[in-house]
Amino acid sequence: MGGAPTELTDSTRDLLGLQGKSAWDLRAILAPAARLMENRRAFGTPLAGRTVVNLFFEDSTRTRASFTIAAQTLGAGVVQFGERGSSSSKGETLVDTARTIEAMGVGALVVRHPSAGAAKLVADHVGIPVCNAGDGAHEHPTQGLLDILALAEAHGRLDRADDDRFDLSGLTVAIVGDVVHSRVARSAIAGMTALGASVVCVGPAGLCPEALSTLGCGVERDLDAVIGEVDAVMALRMQFERGARLDAGPGDGDWDGVGSGGYAERYGLTSRRAGRMKTGAVVMHPGPLNRGLEIESAVADGPSSVVLRQVAWGAPVRMAALLWCMPDQPGEAG
Amino acid sequence: MGGAPTELTDSTRDLLGLQGKSAWDLRAILAPAARLMENRRAFGTPLAGRTVVNLFFEDSTRTRASFTIAAQTLGAGVVQFGERGSSSSKGETLVDTARTIEAMGVGALVVRHPSAGAAKLVADHVGIPVCNAGDGAHEHPTQGLLDILALAEAHGRLDRADDDRFDLSGLTVAIVGDVVHSRVARSAIAGMTALGASVVCVGPAGLCPEALSTLGCGVERDLDAVIGEVDAVMALRMQFERGARLDAGPGDGDWDGVGSGGYAERYGLTSRRAGRMKTGAVVMHPGPLNRGLEIESAVADGPSSVVLRQVAWGAPVRMAALLWCMPDQPGEAG
Amino acid sequence: MGGAPTELTDSTRDLLGLQGKSAWDLRAILAPAARLMENRRAFGTPLAGRTVVNLFFEDSTRTRASFTIAAQTLGAGVVQFGERGSSSSKGETLVDTARTIEAMGVGALVVRHPSAGAAKLVADHVGIPVCNAGDGAHEHPTQGLLDILALAEAHGRLDRADDDRFDLSGLTVAIVGDVVHSRVARSAIAGMTALGASVVCVGPAGLCPEALSTLGCGVERDLDAVIGEVDAVMALRMQFERGARLDAGPGDGDWDGVGSGGYAERYGLTSRRAGRMKTGAVVMHPGPLNRGLEIESAVADGPSSVVLRQVAWGAPVRMAALLWCMPDQPGEAG
Repeated sequence: MGGAPTELTDSTRDLLGLQGKSAWDLRAILAPAARLMENRRAFGTPLAGRTVVNLFFEDSTRTRASFTIAAQTLGAGVVQFGERGSSSSKGETLVDTARTIEAMGVGALVVRHPSAGAAKLVADHVGIPVCNAGDGAHEHPTQGLLDILALAEAHGRLDRADDDRFDLSGLTVAIVGDVVHSRVARSAIAGMTALGASVVCVGPAGLCPEALSTLGCGVERDLDAVIGEVDAVMALRMQFERGARLDAGPGDGDWDGVGSGGYAERYGLTSRRAGRMKTGAVVMHPGPLNRGLEIESAVADGPSSVVLRQVAWGAPVRMAALLWCMPDQPGEAG
Repeated sequence: MGGAPTELTDSTRDLLGLQGKSAWDLRAILAPAARLMENRRAFGTPLAGRTVVNLFFEDSTRTRASFTIAAQTLGAGVVQFGERGSSSSKGETLVDTARTIEAMGVGALVVRHPSAGAAKLVADHVGIPVCNAGDGAHEHPTQGLLDILALAEAHGRLDRADDDRFDLSGLTVAIVGDVVHSRVARSAIAGMTALGASVVCVGPAGLCPEALSTLGCGVERDLDAVIGEVDAVMALRMQFERGARLDAGPGDGDWDGVGSGGYAERYGLTSRRAGRMKTGAVVMHPGPLNRGLEIESAVADGPSSVVLRQVAWGAPVRMAALLWCMPDQPGEAG
Repeated sequence: MGGAPTELTDSTRDLLGLQGKSAWDLRAILAPAARLMENRRAFGTPLAGRTVVNLFFEDSTRTRASFTIAAQTLGAGVVQFGERGSSSSKGETLVDTARTIEAMGVGALVVRHPSAGAAKLVADHVGIPVCNAGDGAHEHPTQGLLDILALAEAHGRLDRADDDRFDLSGLTVAIVGDVVHSRVARSAIAGMTALGASVVCVGPAGLCPEALSTLGCGVERDLDAVIGEVDAVMALRMQFERGARLDAGPGDGDWDGVGSGGYAERYGLTSRRAGRMKTGAVVMHPGPLNRGLEIESAVADGPSSVVLRQVAWGAPVRMAALLWCMPDQPGEAG
């Protein structure tokens, strides 16, 4: 559509994923996030008078709320898009929708979509910043960043000198379960390894294929062989809504099927298993929890759990992400 | 889940109900509400930079809007939760949801839920203030407070000296109809009697059982025997969605069944009946109205109706409630 | 309902439609809109502490968002009403709902409803300003205003001296397609002719009946006979959801039926047709687009398209409309 009010320039900063980002890149968001965790008003309300649009085509509780809180706390107005009541029922394409919203004069788009690559597709067609809030099984960068911060916090890597800050070297993280469907895992692997951590994915072949090693992580089948060696275990949510299956038989491709009980027995983060973790090792989970399946309640609520710390880092990380994406000049002046 | 960022302390103030509250307790909210009715900006925007979450698991028009207006007018950001798009579809429990929202660093939860006790359940598991916006047939305290204020206003009890302010002694209020399903009635009974009013519930035994007298009110069957004696009549909405029935026969338990026509005839607030009220007596209704059933349009819109005054008190009461619940220190600093 | 907190006075300004408005009337909104297009913060946040309610009973993407952005940018809080979660499921009437919202102490109602006249019905029963955001096939005045501004901008009518500003005389606009179902067309016809433009509606008789000429526009059947003469072509969205049909036969009343292919061939804004337009003539569309039906993608995205400029004018126009409707004194002081 003609007459777009903004120009596509290199100054636009999109946060589409953590893959390919250096430690230096990551620190540009992590450092202000850590500052905002101490004091949410540390930077005032630099987004006052501007608008952030949540363009969400997928159900979401915490991510939408977290971005809303982040944007509002920075002074921005927030508009919700993409649910019932959106033009998609009138046949408009994703790109048309995004370009139309851009034309309204908004400051940034936060995009969540069931298809991998949707955020990049939008970013390629608008001149305002796009922040990926989860695109299919691809990436969920702000989740990856908050995972990094919760891990760094638990292991005393927040308070180091500048060059060393957020450095995760020497730490090993096991990501357990439904890795193949997990954008959370992809972002965490990219971000954590960039900061020096070692990551190993653990699960049955159907959920955790060998090919994941191309992301720079190890792949293991036996959680019990790993659990005593790692500094953090991140249990992933079984994403049944994306096709995760617990009951497929061994004959079904490379899937070494385990039933629901079998899954919890082999890969569930049980109290017994958590008890074998190293001193200081922590338990993570992106939520929402399937209690009793991938994680036992006693572990999720136990002393080694940093699950709620992950959540707590959400708003500061999204505030820092929005500040990073939306530089000073108001592109939406109209 | 581990690592909650706030502590459970006695300083957290929840507004779960009016039962058990003294006149002194009630005045702590009623007085600022009366001030805010005169000038909504009387206290400025003390909640600027903070977030109020509406955690609503039940349809609601006016209550949600009223809390939203209240919070926004005080400067807070508001996030809507609990509808389509919430994690409940992913199997998260109410308590997990509430604790997760708390961990995001919000200032207060406004909870509406179809189950009695839900607000208390949440309050028992989070360290931030919880304001009950209606829990099943239990309580709806802000509605009770606005009912008190509309009644006090109509009878000149707003402008008295401090110790006497909002005193309702000497006034008798009839609450008519579906009392058994009504959280509105429970809150009104508790609050009005604490301030000195006499309350009598009037209705058929199925909707207005004798056991209600344990709440400190009288129970009557014959509205016509009462209507000429009272200073206010509060007609309740027939809550068909909670199981209220108009057509059950007398053999059905202690229900002295009356059909829809029979109900209106015996308990409806008709013009004829309203005409028999004392001079100065007022008609109240929590809304939304079932016109022609529990109340006749001519009465709802007539000169003795304070129905829209009740609504008008909504935002000031909720502002005062939020200010009471959310003391000065920002618990959600992150 | 008794005790409404506000009075019905002549000082309330409703924006219900453009029909009957003079050029002078229109300039009172167009001029501040043009100013806000240059700088959205030109007038500060005069609505801070006030509330705008979007009372939408029809799906909407851009209009709801645009009003939300407009109100928030002026400092107002925004509350969404009328979808799932509204009291309409409890049997409340439109008027009761509107009067209840008014009683909450809000500053203005933005009403969108599938029935023509709904906004006026509301305005007749409340004392606060009502801004029509689309009522059935009747009017959509803010859309008409932004169409005027996009047209004026394209033809250099923004920067003239005051008395001459926004004057559209000498310009001819063709509105093509489903005019009979289009509130957008009604508002555009009224507004553009008031400012001196000539408007001609073009389409088959079933979508573009002769009777439209009573609105002050011409009616033509043959787009190709007109396309080379006009200064703007506004292609309307085929509103199948309002009963527009492409396949009815000629025997069906006064409908000179054309199939979908036939429609695009005779009335679609194709590249070939757009190529025959005068130099400087522009293509408009209210969106969302049915690409390939009423407009070809190459045209919608081509150099003569001002489709995104129309969108860009949305927020400034709605800001100006809200400022016009909500004069200085806060009617909602409570």
